[in-house]
Amino acid sequence: MGDNLRIFVDCDPGIDDALALAYLTARPEAEIAGVGTVFGNHNVDTTTDNALRLLRLYGAPGVPVARGAQRPLVQPPTLAESVHGANGLGDVVLPAADHEPVAETAAELLVRLARSAPGEIDVLAVGPLTNLALALSLEPRLPELVGRVVVMGGAVRAPGNVTPWAEANTSNDPEAAEAVFAAGFDLTLVALDITMKTEVDAAWLDGLKRIEGERASTTSDFLEFYVAWYSKLFGARACAMHDPLAAAVLLDPALVTAHVDVPVRVELQGRHTRGLTIADLRPGADTSADPRPSVRLVTEVDREAFFKRLTDSLR
Amino acid sequence: MGDNLRIFVDCDPGIDDALALAYLTARPEAEIAGVGTVFGNHNVDTTTDNALRLLRLYGAPGVPVARGAQRPLVQPPTLAESVHGANGLGDVVLPAADHEPVAETAAELLVRLARSAPGEIDVLAVGPLTNLALALSLEPRLPELVGRVVVMGGAVRAPGNVTPWAEANTSNDPEAAEAVFAAGFDLTLVALDITMKTEVDAAWLDGLKRIEGERASTTSDFLEFYVAWYSKLFGARACAMHDPLAAAVLLDPALVTAHVDVPVRVELQGRHTRGLTIADLRPGADTSADPRPSVRLVTEVDREAFFKRLTDSLR
Repeated sequence: MGDNLRIFVDCDPGIDDALALAYLTARPEAEIAGVGTVFGNHNVDTTTDNALRLLRLYGAPGVPVARGAQRPLVQPPTLAESVHGANGLGDVVLPAADHEPVAETAAELLVRLARSAPGEIDVLAVGPLTNLALALSLEPRLPELVGRVVVMGGAVRAPGNVTPWAEANTSNDPEAAEAVFAAGFDLTLVALDITMKTEVDAAWLDGLKRIEGERASTTSDFLEFYVAWYSKLFGARACAMHDPLAAAVLLDPALVTAHVDVPVRVELQGRHTRGLTIADLRPGADTSADPRPSVRLVTEVDREAFFKRLTDSLR
Repeated sequence: MGDNLRIFVDCDPGIDDALALAYLTARPEAEIAGVGTVFGNHNVDTTTDNALRLLRLYGAPGVPVARGAQRPLVQPPTLAESVHGANGLGDVVLPAADHEPVAETAAELLVRLARSAPGEIDVLAVGPLTNLALALSLEPRLPELVGRVVVMGGAVRAPGNVTPWAEANTSNDPEAAEAVFAAGFDLTLVALDITMKTEVDAAWLDGLKRIEGERASTTSDFLEFYVAWYSKLFGARACAMHDPLAAAVLLDPALVTAHVDVPVRVELQGRHTRGLTIADLRPGADTSADPRPSVRLVTEVDREAFFKRLTDSLR
């Protein structure tokens, strides 16, 4: 890995967002240049407070946190308390934040950071893409000003998680996701297609319990709530690692063992399919004449290496 | 199998339609009570003429053929000459038809047959569902008046074949398909999900060439054109057996080794997803509160038994 990765994290913590922050903060070569927050797993007041508390928990207390969008560009917001708990962190109460959010919005902070160091800021976006879409409106050159963008969102061939076909982050703001996928970012998409087959199992969860220290034990407490929800889906004690997998793909691109470069669109008009991410994954499909820029859709990862690094990040 | 199956076949021949007719005409216990034709693989004049010629070829010349819809309920028609050839039968010229279509439309013939023998007519629908939707308008009690309905159409989790996500028969008339899936028929759906993994291979195609007689040799000639198109998709000499698989599911229900009972809808409003068939196939999905009646979505078949019976039908 190159040194001095500088990362803007746009998130809605959220239990798996917490693990993404843990992953990033554990790695000396990665600097979180800023955190933007957004509605999604909870309302933006809560996700902002959670981001501040998590940065304290994970030993990165000085990172600037900018409160972002409280609602999608067009539709009313929906939240996900059943998955993430009444406080967004599995009802685990963390010590209070030790600093305040900055005065800028998340979109403004991202634009300022990108302009101040063109090409040097990578973006990890693991919530609804509202802040990125707003940042694109503030600064249309954003795709040239940032480095890599890794997005957790979408479900191309996998079933959805908020409807039978749509994934939460894209369906929570379809217009924002469509704007981001169209913008020409160097964008890697970590969709349900890969995250739903990258679930940690009972052995991994038990291993986490055996690690000493507050970092591991508190994260394990978050996961109890999350696992209770996911176990119904998987039919076993297990849970999907959506956001930390996206963090890992940003920090450790070699974990990606297969991908497809493909234009991705978001259905905005469907009665049943609004929020659906669509891409032509047919064998031999020729998208060369498609004016939409391609994104890098992750189709396979080195699961075991990822699980090991995720464990290491919590030691 | 029970004896005296009486079947109304709604089709748009079409090469794989031809094989469906071959499958049905080969079985003494199955009587084709009538054939309706529809635009789809070609215009309705051509599919009607093809149906008449095919019935002569396959030794069922007296079956009444009723010309059906020349266009979808709402949208303009699109055809599929690249798959089925300029004459809809792989450019193979068959002897002329030996009778004329009946004066009724396909929808009228279906309704008359169903009323004349309530519960005794099964329906095999392997083209756009326009005629069935029109028949439902003529006779809203049609679901109670017919027996089983087997439809070849849709793509739930498989990619589409006319767009990356939509299947030809449903996207050729989405409104008609939606009306049929909503109507409460005893309906079995043979979608691309199963037909695209039930392709015949080079060995099967070569075996067909070794069977003597016009029935096999002419069918083999049809398939040359079809295989040329499908080989690009499969990356090998092979082709999907969409319509004959639906015929087989009607005649030989035991070929179905797995299915899901699930409500199916057709997206009518999407910009990218119009024509998409959608169903909640998530593990543990509870559709019991859904007011939409379920259809029987075929998810696995006994492929080898099907291939053998398909061969036998061409001897």
